[in-house]
Amino acid sequence: MAPVIGIDIGGTSIRGALVTSDGRATRFTRIFVGRNRRPSQILQSLSELVRSIQEGTPGRSRLRPRRGPFGVGIGVPGIVSPSTGRVFASPHFPQWKNFDIRRKLVARLRAPIVLDNDANMAACGERWLGAARKWDAFLMLTLGTGIGGAMMIDKKIVHGTSGFTGEFGHLVIESEGPPCACGSRGCLETFFSATAALRLIREEARRGKKRDRAMWRSVLAGGGSLAPLRLAAMGKMGNKAARELYARMGSFLGIGLASLVNVTGIQKIVLGGGLMGAKGLFLSAALREMKRRTYRQTGRGIEVVAAQLGDSAGVFGAARAAFDR
Amino acid sequence: MAPVIGIDIGGTSIRGALVTSDGRATRFTRIFVGRNRRPSQILQSLSELVRSIQEGTPGRSRLRPRRGPFGVGIGVPGIVSPSTGRVFASPHFPQWKNFDIRRKLVARLRAPIVLDNDANMAACGERWLGAARKWDAFLMLTLGTGIGGAMMIDKKIVHGTSGFTGEFGHLVIESEGPPCACGSRGCLETFFSATAALRLIREEARRGKKRDRAMWRSVLAGGGSLAPLRLAAMGKMGNKAARELYARMGSFLGIGLASLVNVTGIQKIVLGGGLMGAKGLFLSAALREMKRRTYRQTGRGIEVVAAQLGDSAGVFGAARAAFDR
Repeated sequence: MAPVIGIDIGGTSIRGALVTSDGRATRFTRIFVGRNRRPSQILQSLSELVRSIQEGTPGRSRLRPRRGPFGVGIGVPGIVSPSTGRVFASPHFPQWKNFDIRRKLVARLRAPIVLDNDANMAACGERWLGAARKWDAFLMLTLGTGIGGAMMIDKKIVHGTSGFTGEFGHLVIESEGPPCACGSRGCLETFFSATAALRLIREEARRGKKRDRAMWRSVLAGGGSLAPLRLAAMGKMGNKAARELYARMGSFLGIGLASLVNVTGIQKIVLGGGLMGAKGLFLSAALREMKRRTYRQTGRGIEVVAAQLGDSAGVFGAARAAFDR
Repeated sequence: MAPVIGIDIGGTSIRGALVTSDGRATRFTRIFVGRNRRPSQILQSLSELVRSIQEGTPGRSRLRPRRGPFGVGIGVPGIVSPSTGRVFASPHFPQWKNFDIRRKLVARLRAPIVLDNDANMAACGERWLGAARKWDAFLMLTLGTGIGGAMMIDKKIVHGTSGFTGEFGHLVIESEGPPCACGSRGCLETFFSATAALRLIREEARRGKKRDRAMWRSVLAGGGSLAPLRLAAMGKMGNKAARELYARMGSFLGIGLASLVNVTGIQKIVLGGGLMGAKGLFLSAALREMKRRTYRQTGRGIEVVAAQLGDSAGVFGAARAAFDR
């Protein structure tokens, strides 16, 4: 089968590669997305990325002689309908409202294009070459700034009524908890996410034990967005307060996982995303809480594993989706 | 196509009927289950029920000349594996532990048998002849003593890894809420169910506003299990305290519905079960809270409807499952 191009659109950059049907990727390319996020600008970047992969980098690629049009799979952040090829809404690209991205790209690239949500593509990647290779049905959670997710059943990604299955971050676990950007309160991602970690650190710096406040303020010094990472590094070196905070977050993740298993009946779970770099600090607390919250028979059957493809899951998954089409 | 027998095993009785492939049911039969719930006793009752339906009631049935063996579909309360035909565990029949009910019944009845969870069968019934006729994907919640549920995607019931998809009652909505029989705390059914209503009524009778306590005690007089029904009757006649309690419960249901939509992406929901007799007292509060808790675009697309087949959904659904096999 001819190779395809897998593309993963992220908040800060677009990645792509040429992928063969046996799972080898070459011509990895990454374009950073600037402040200009006009739809036409992104379409332009996408076209350039695809063309550069199609044409290969002279002298470097073993696949050099082969030129497009290749099939293209694209993972898009936000609510996407694979059947209509439209982006309903995207947190990173506010101008994409019911945006007919596939039609526009087909006109530019003259290639068959498959679209889906980025978390769905990452799940396809993990199923093809990563942690979920043996599973026909599993849940995937991406733990980062927020929580994204995907649900695969019978080897197929579930899309629900309008294409937004897997908003696992917006499972309410505390009816009167902190307000969430989605309009609800106490959503899972207000208790477990990099954003939640930042909120908790700020709370400790303001209202925590007096003797620890200076420590929390030092974690916040130099920019809040890196504080969760800094705290994780401290936890790994044995700092007790840091370990406690991550374990507390982990318990909330466990509550969410228990609810997800009870609702879907799916006992196979892949955890990915940037926060998994600190998994040693929260995973055992999460699993303990999850077991406490499920029937004994149910809890026994649950398997939770770490994603294996890291940042490349989306590119491989998008390629897989292009092959499957 | 030859008619089949649909059977619904409940906590207090077993119902069955002969059902034609165009959805007409005759020979409705119901056997009450006594205190003796030994597996052999239930198997005996099931065999008698099937035989009496097979043979018809003399002089009554137009289908009289037709005799078994008919295909049989059976809805079973608890965790059931349709593929192995085993009951993993059942709340009403504690002796059924990994019970190989299908093999035992096939030996007795010499008929092909299809098994599934009772809520799954009810969802099949509503999809065939009831409220979900137009939907290929929907969620069904049965609101009664607890909350049962089912998830249909692509016209098929989802069974998850071990056959227990749809435990919507065990979605945690308050991490430190009331303890639940499942081992967790703050599950949806501790806030919305007949059991939850009874708990709330008892709380009001003990700790509510002083001037209302006598009223709450009168609701409890004569047996707690009927108190939620009595309260609903009072609410329908305009009693303010009764209406407030049901509306409060309804808000919790709304939180659960929002989480379910966010997780599954399925925006079509059928609500059934005994508590729907009081839907005028809680449904608008539930829908209001659900909308508050979902993204605007998502909330707009949600349709929540009442089940249409009542107590017969399980029998029709079991028959449908037998036809589909």
